[in-house]
Amino acid sequence: MLTYSFENIDSESMYEHLYRCIKQDILQEKLRAGEKLPSKRAFAKNLGVSTITVESAYAQLVAEGFLYALPKRGYYVCDLERKETAPLPPPPKPQTPAIQPAPKRTYWADFVGSSVARDMFPFSVWVKLLRDVTAGEDEATLLTDTSAGGIQQLRQAISDHLYQFRGMSIDPEQIVVGAGTEYLYSVLIQLLGRQWGYAVEDPGYLRLSKIYEKNDVATYHIPMDEHGIIPEKLEESGAEILHITPSHHFPTGIVMPVSRRYEFLSWASKGENRYIIEDDYDCEFRLAGRPIPTLQSIDVMEKVIYINTFSKSLAPAFRISYLVLPKHLVTRFYDTLGFYSGTVSCLEQMTLARFLSEGYFEKHINRMRNHYRALRDKLLAELRQSPLAGKVRISEENAGLHFLLELDTQRSDEEIRAAAEREDLRLSFVSQYYVSDQNRRPHVLVMNYSGLEERQIPEAVARLCRAVEG
Amino acid sequence: MLTYSFENIDSESMYEHLYRCIKQDILQEKLRAGEKLPSKRAFAKNLGVSTITVESAYAQLVAEGFLYALPKRGYYVCDLERKETAPLPPPPKPQTPAIQPAPKRTYWADFVGSSVARDMFPFSVWVKLLRDVTAGEDEATLLTDTSAGGIQQLRQAISDHLYQFRGMSIDPEQIVVGAGTEYLYSVLIQLLGRQWGYAVEDPGYLRLSKIYEKNDVATYHIPMDEHGIIPEKLEESGAEILHITPSHHFPTGIVMPVSRRYEFLSWASKGENRYIIEDDYDCEFRLAGRPIPTLQSIDVMEKVIYINTFSKSLAPAFRISYLVLPKHLVTRFYDTLGFYSGTVSCLEQMTLARFLSEGYFEKHINRMRNHYRALRDKLLAELRQSPLAGKVRISEENAGLHFLLELDTQRSDEEIRAAAEREDLRLSFVSQYYVSDQNRRPHVLVMNYSGLEERQIPEAVARLCRAVEG
Repeated sequence: MLTYSFENIDSESMYEHLYRCIKQDILQEKLRAGEKLPSKRAFAKNLGVSTITVESAYAQLVAEGFLYALPKRGYYVCDLERKETAPLPPPPKPQTPAIQPAPKRTYWADFVGSSVARDMFPFSVWVKLLRDVTAGEDEATLLTDTSAGGIQQLRQAISDHLYQFRGMSIDPEQIVVGAGTEYLYSVLIQLLGRQWGYAVEDPGYLRLSKIYEKNDVATYHIPMDEHGIIPEKLEESGAEILHITPSHHFPTGIVMPVSRRYEFLSWASKGENRYIIEDDYDCEFRLAGRPIPTLQSIDVMEKVIYINTFSKSLAPAFRISYLVLPKHLVTRFYDTLGFYSGTVSCLEQMTLARFLSEGYFEKHINRMRNHYRALRDKLLAELRQSPLAGKVRISEENAGLHFLLELDTQRSDEEIRAAAEREDLRLSFVSQYYVSDQNRRPHVLVMNYSGLEERQIPEAVARLCRAVEG
Repeated sequence: MLTYSFENIDSESMYEHLYRCIKQDILQEKLRAGEKLPSKRAFAKNLGVSTITVESAYAQLVAEGFLYALPKRGYYVCDLERKETAPLPPPPKPQTPAIQPAPKRTYWADFVGSSVARDMFPFSVWVKLLRDVTAGEDEATLLTDTSAGGIQQLRQAISDHLYQFRGMSIDPEQIVVGAGTEYLYSVLIQLLGRQWGYAVEDPGYLRLSKIYEKNDVATYHIPMDEHGIIPEKLEESGAEILHITPSHHFPTGIVMPVSRRYEFLSWASKGENRYIIEDDYDCEFRLAGRPIPTLQSIDVMEKVIYINTFSKSLAPAFRISYLVLPKHLVTRFYDTLGFYSGTVSCLEQMTLARFLSEGYFEKHINRMRNHYRALRDKLLAELRQSPLAGKVRISEENAGLHFLLELDTQRSDEEIRAAAEREDLRLSFVSQYYVSDQNRRPHVLVMNYSGLEERQIPEAVARLCRAVEG
């Protein structure tokens, strides 16, 4: 009878050891297809183990398909039918070199990436709110609510926030919460249809068109004039979906005037499948004046889908964004996509709902805005005292977290960027955000100052001067 | 000169009030296109307000496109060019009825939905870990890390967990963390290509094929025999991507035997674009024996993509899942999709990383497993003492959170389901998970017991008996 040694089996259980021994014999064909194994009782006696041990090993081997059981007759070895497959036991894995991702270059000062200053987030408040939430009465919901549109409490809080802060009057049911705007774009494509053309601004946020392309929709890059996308060019493109940033265009900072807004609403009203996606990505950070009213709030035809994110206003590492759908699209969303589970953890949704409704968000935004205003003022003051003063034109400094710095220079943008790299500065130019080559406006720096520290500014400006002047 | 009253302006600031008055006059064409506004100083004097107030109001109106400024000449009303657009001010919004989502039916006992028993989650540990994380040295990363694949700490912790728990030896770089498996399916489609056919199990998890369809990929429903998908039918379909649940098929509970696993690995090796997606959705809840080894661990050809989720093992409301990519696909992922931001908040990723690496996850799973085992045992015992005993066959009770209950009955599945509804029980049959009508196996209940409370069980079985016996 089959015999295995149970000595030196270390930390394995008896049944695991037996399981492994039998499996190995099957793989090495010492036990052949169709061969009958000893009865559990006889085998146990022979091995000096309990019947339970043999039974467990057999059960595992049956579950994995190495043995099969015939009622009242016993256990037999399966035919593994290993024609054309890799020899067994598997050879060592092929020597694919270990994956070494390219280390991300960091800079002494980065005028490109969005960032949040250390110590700017009220973590202790967040932790306290989370603790309150988990100690609350909604514990059961906390574990199980996976509504496609987001939890009710958060949608209500966002609706209240939009009313107070943006003058938008919307039903919480119109809100769809999701794990970042990038994810929500793909939801919109599923909702509106992959068959339409999607128009984006050129210049614009290049990541956006990349996302449309990865989702296999036709993407049109529409040129802009000083008021935004040119309506005639949009019409010519044949696109049905228009994706714009009317409150504050990236990177030029253009605020779309009312007249152009009405032109686009009119354009949208002329086609059943036409929609406007209004991307309000940094409206919280307008540093002077009232926020610009949204396109959504003057849309009477249910053609505007509003999208915004907390990744900008809280911190990038929070992945919570939302859509505001026109009412007829809410119905379509739940009919066609309502089966999806939500993508933001219920714990974070609940915590954010309280963060909003208890006034912490407003406080946080005000604090951030003051912080950014101080950074901007310091940077502007430093520039005005620098050798560059008089040779640059500053514009669009009141909105978002960047301003434009137009240089009076003969050097190419690429040359200046390379010189900045040598100064360990990361810079970007408006010219980098164009897809088409026509109209590419040179010599305009996009100065995103959100990631700087105040004490860095004098030195950063000195380095910038050296990079620009060569 | 233009005059407005500043009485009774409530909580508005002076400049807001002035802004609104002028804007309204422009919209109502009391101020016409091209008309010049009073100079700031004269207007301020006339209104009895400060020049700053007028200046701010003008600036806002310029920003919104109602006025334009000519250097050294003053402010003029824009031409709103409102041809063909809605009349202004906007009429009341069209009377779309307020959205009343259909209230979700709840049941006295639900044998279908996955759920988590109240009080099963160690919230206090979670809050403590989050507090530790926010008080730690990584505060800066916490706010800004949005890596496409997930944060390093969590990928390392998952890799360790997979090694200990699943015997899988993988590089943390192979892991891609995302906000739920549904989201990760769409990532895989972007990674592997929308042009291929995707094969899924029939019967199977219907939501999966719905997701493929919403993502506009050709989806093939391949019939199964008692070992899983039938290889010949897969070959005939022409699909290139095979999505399977080899460790524990839903809903039949089939564990794919080794021979069939090798057949599929062999199938995949025959085409450059062929891949197998191994969905290991509930491997943590095998209630007897060792877990079944994964397909991923016997794949030497880099053809298997492993996917699993914490939404099952922690609780549904946590939206954290992950992929394990073969190494050559890691490179492709970062080349083509690495620009995406991650979809899970960094706070939750860090907290989960500690939850795993400090042993809390294992404790939690053990506790859940014991809880579910007790539920299952009680339910099986109750069934064996019920009038149904002898008229039902129970199978697949050792894995996942459901077992099969085969009824000896003349009544249709639909009849029994309707009778159960009247008993306020939610039931589902294996027959509901088929897409094709052939081979549809009747009279087999899928008994998901995860959402029950132990004290409900006697009454639930009594209701079940009444529903089945009519």
